Amino acid sequence: MATATRPVTYDDRGTALTGFLAWDDAAPQPLPGLLLVHGGAGLDDHAKGQAQRYAALGYAVLACDMFGDGVAGNRERVMACLMELRDDPRRMSRRAEAGLAALAGCPEARGRFAAVGFCFGGLAVLTLARSGADVTGVVSIHGSLATVKPAEPGAVKAKVLACHGALDPHVPLADVVAFAEEMDHAGADWQLIMYGGAVHGFTHEHAVPGAMPGVAYDVSADRRSFAASLAFLAEALAPTAPRPGTARSTR
Amino acid sequence: MATATRPVTYDDRGTALTGFLAWDDAAPQPLPGLLLVHGGAGLDDHAKGQAQRYAALGYAVLACDMFGDGVAGNRERVMACLMELRDDPRRMSRRAEAGLAALAGCPEARGRFAAVGFCFGGLAVLTLARSGADVTGVVSIHGSLATVKPAEPGAVKAKVLACHGALDPHVPLADVVAFAEEMDHAGADWQLIMYGGAVHGFTHEHAVPGAMPGVAYDVSADRRSFAASLAFLAEALAPTAPRPGTARSTR
Repeated sequence: MATATRPVTYDDRGTALTGFLAWDDAAPQPLPGLLLVHGGAGLDDHAKGQAQRYAALGYAVLACDMFGDGVAGNRERVMACLMELRDDPRRMSRRAEAGLAALAGCPEARGRFAAVGFCFGGLAVLTLARSGADVTGVVSIHGSLATVKPAEPGAVKAKVLACHGALDPHVPLADVVAFAEEMDHAGADWQLIMYGGAVHGFTHEHAVPGAMPGVAYDVSADRRSFAASLAFLAEALAPTAPRPGTARSTR
Repeated sequence: MATATRPVTYDDRGTALTGFLAWDDAAPQPLPGLLLVHGGAGLDDHAKGQAQRYAALGYAVLACDMFGDGVAGNRERVMACLMELRDDPRRMSRRAEAGLAALAGCPEARGRFAAVGFCFGGLAVLTLARSGADVTGVVSIHGSLATVKPAEPGAVKAKVLACHGALDPHVPLADVVAFAEEMDHAGADWQLIMYGGAVHGFTHEHAVPGAMPGVAYDVSADRRSFAASLAFLAEALAPTAPRPGTARSTR
């Protein structure tokens, strides 16, 4: 295994964006493509580390940039970007789709693609799914489940997996219930895993304890959600994966 | 693979019980031991089929008998048994522990053991976990999550996995929320997976559609919960599995 990385520049209607591509350079390419969406801080070491973690398992992973050049690290601009995207789901999914288009331009990747997101990025990939984007599957990891624009019946084409810390103070159980009702109403092919004892940001291995209220690393939830995500992606990206709507048969 | 089966007779304080042991006769024994608890109908073809399904993957599985000889098939006696056990968690866990003792007496199995249960059996294995029984893990599959005797803080030694159909009319979302709160209050190492679109009894491949209100087979939820259960058991029964309370570290 030799995980290679390179920057990928692209844009969304004039906003210059720089993503981070990671892939196993020793594996035959093109590899199954995965879009990875960073948390609220922007395309940081956590997102790059997660991209390399998935890349090591055989995916060509584009950790995309949802904010634009020069925003990450500038708290005021980050907050403005977060609010703007959170309040405008169409803008949010368009920004994520620009990442999918950039990934499609990478010779290392082949797809239909899936998408994985963390915290804010979890909301982003769910927004992508709610919009009806042509992705095979989306995984939200300690992401926001509430939305200003619930999925319409029949809209969600992607399989959906949400990995949720049961004690996440930023995403209360009421949001889990509302999400379940929303997804079932939409007729989505969805799953949600609750990890007992885990709070927000449970994959942040290098989080400083106490530095962010309600955020803590949880080694069990981290490992279990990674394994669940891999199993989900294997199903969602399988060459023989049934198209949405045909996966579930009741007899 | 050659799945062998044999009856196992045992008793619980004078109640004669007959379980069904399934194991891969071609594999080196003893095998990791698994207790399997049937649904509300008693030790039927569904429970025996599930025992063989897990046995084919390398477990020595005792599908235990919670009702006693001559009860399954007699609707009145079944209902009386169900009520009696449901309303008396100590009796329920004692009955399941008799199954664990019977499994310990089988030379095909080595333990510590884990337990898997369906519907009523899901409640039974959760009752076992709540009682503090020495099992490494319990899996409830479309089981009842409500209880007359919530787990006390620190009581649950087993890892816990609940696989739940999000549209199960017999186990509403309010029960999921109460279960999450109960398990976190108890400090258990627990997970719950919700399967979108699935109702009660989603592993019952041979269920006659419409025969039981709110019960239907769901091929996706069946396959996904089986895979999740296997991954969970691999962790719970791993020789190096940390003892409860040490699995989760927060830093």
